[in-house]
Amino acid sequence: MASPGPVHAFVPGHVTVFFAPRFRDDPARTGSIGAGLTLADGVVVGVEPSDETSVTLNGERVSMAPVERALAALGTPAGVHAETPLPPGAGFGVSGAVTLGAALAANHATGAARSENDLVRAAHVAEVESNTGLGDVVAQARGGLPIRLEAGAPPHGALDGIPTAARVEYVSFGDRSTSDVLTGDTVALAAAGERALAALREAPTLDRLFALGGRFAREADLLSPPVATAIEAVEATGGTATMAMLGETVVALDDGLSAAGYDASACRTHPAGATLRLAPESP
Amino acid sequence: MASPGPVHAFVPGHVTVFFAPRFRDDPARTGSIGAGLTLADGVVVGVEPSDETSVTLNGERVSMAPVERALAALGTPAGVHAETPLPPGAGFGVSGAVTLGAALAANHATGAARSENDLVRAAHVAEVESNTGLGDVVAQARGGLPIRLEAGAPPHGALDGIPTAARVEYVSFGDRSTSDVLTGDTVALAAAGERALAALREAPTLDRLFALGGRFAREADLLSPPVATAIEAVEATGGTATMAMLGETVVALDDGLSAAGYDASACRTHPAGATLRLAPESP
Repeated sequence: MASPGPVHAFVPGHVTVFFAPRFRDDPARTGSIGAGLTLADGVVVGVEPSDETSVTLNGERVSMAPVERALAALGTPAGVHAETPLPPGAGFGVSGAVTLGAALAANHATGAARSENDLVRAAHVAEVESNTGLGDVVAQARGGLPIRLEAGAPPHGALDGIPTAARVEYVSFGDRSTSDVLTGDTVALAAAGERALAALREAPTLDRLFALGGRFAREADLLSPPVATAIEAVEATGGTATMAMLGETVVALDDGLSAAGYDASACRTHPAGATLRLAPESP
Repeated sequence: MASPGPVHAFVPGHVTVFFAPRFRDDPARTGSIGAGLTLADGVVVGVEPSDETSVTLNGERVSMAPVERALAALGTPAGVHAETPLPPGAGFGVSGAVTLGAALAANHATGAARSENDLVRAAHVAEVESNTGLGDVVAQARGGLPIRLEAGAPPHGALDGIPTAARVEYVSFGDRSTSDVLTGDTVALAAAGERALAALREAPTLDRLFALGGRFAREADLLSPPVATAIEAVEATGGTATMAMLGETVVALDDGLSAAGYDASACRTHPAGATLRLAPESP
């Protein structure tokens, strides 16, 4: 191979701003339409050879069903070590990121010679089958500010993007189960998500994305008191904020949360999708 | 907007290793299948408001038909200033990069609110109509090591990728007109490109990409004496090299060209597609 040495995958965080689920018989065609932001705060994933898949997250042994499913489907079991500054279960796509990163790193480490689309599809299908996510993986494979036009993994899904970049802040007030919401009644949520997507496509800008996110969260009845309070506080200081789907998390443009008095994390949107990082980094 | 200050687009260079042209009535469906590498050496494009499009490349006024076509089609004429370390006309996709970068930067500067797919399609169509390129724009919009499965711009084309990264070197021995080759007899070339794509999809790895590139260049009868000599020299020292389509250019993995005694430029493959860079870069 061209580059010896340790191999890691980096997968950006992903915040969905609005969405509508799409359930089909084929998990590769199941997913969600919607839009969001990928974040430079993400997950670094390394692997070591192993006959059985295990996962550590920030040094602690965890059980992550989609990682086990994806690596089993690819025939590349591995010891997976993931590090992230993002809180799990808070709407940042951590499970999708670990799954996609593990697929990329294990493919490289084992010489399995799959294509990127193959790896993205395996990670997406594993998330769908585990009820842990519907749209994070394809967004995280793309990067930028992804618009999910049609649900599903390659070659079924279709993506577009908002051609910009931004500085954002985020704060989380706890976790929320993706599985609980996605297995509940999603009719009103889906209708709100479809309206938001149609409106975004008329003028795909950052300001409109955030405005549609606030409307979607209200229409889909997903706002909890701390999230609603934080969004109002940011808007009261002239800022722009919305909720991360599905988590007890608020994302604001620029310094909107710290200006409103919150102790928030700051990062930029990420210009790239998931990638392998081969050492050494510089030529 | 979220980020004031100067706006530039960055578009990676792109080297096609093998390809087959696809001509259709619709320029958005015209293009090429094939595979290649995007490069961290690319083109930085800035714009200033103007009623008429003009282009400077590394400070010199130049005529670039695809830039004028794309900005006219988008209704966003601009003064375009492009800077690049890449030699034009040598197979690095400089015309596609300037065109896509100008579309991204002018869209942002004018508030035209097009989506990324819209901008990629406008740049691709302008390249096709100008006979300056068939596959660079969609590859440069994607980044990484793009495989062009189906020709054309979004929503028509289809892409995949080789999930890796590499250090590369390149050297150019002059320029070659894309237009001259693409308007000539392309039957043998297309058959060789289709065979190479099918073989790459069986095992999409970096080593196979380069091996298929050498075979394609011979089968399509595109090797000039200096290119053939350089590839042989790299291989004689144990390295791996291939030709950039369409240019008098050789690309080698790692330090293959300098090890063979050539005065070569070095860079890495680029993990991201074309992006806007908003100032300041850091949070």
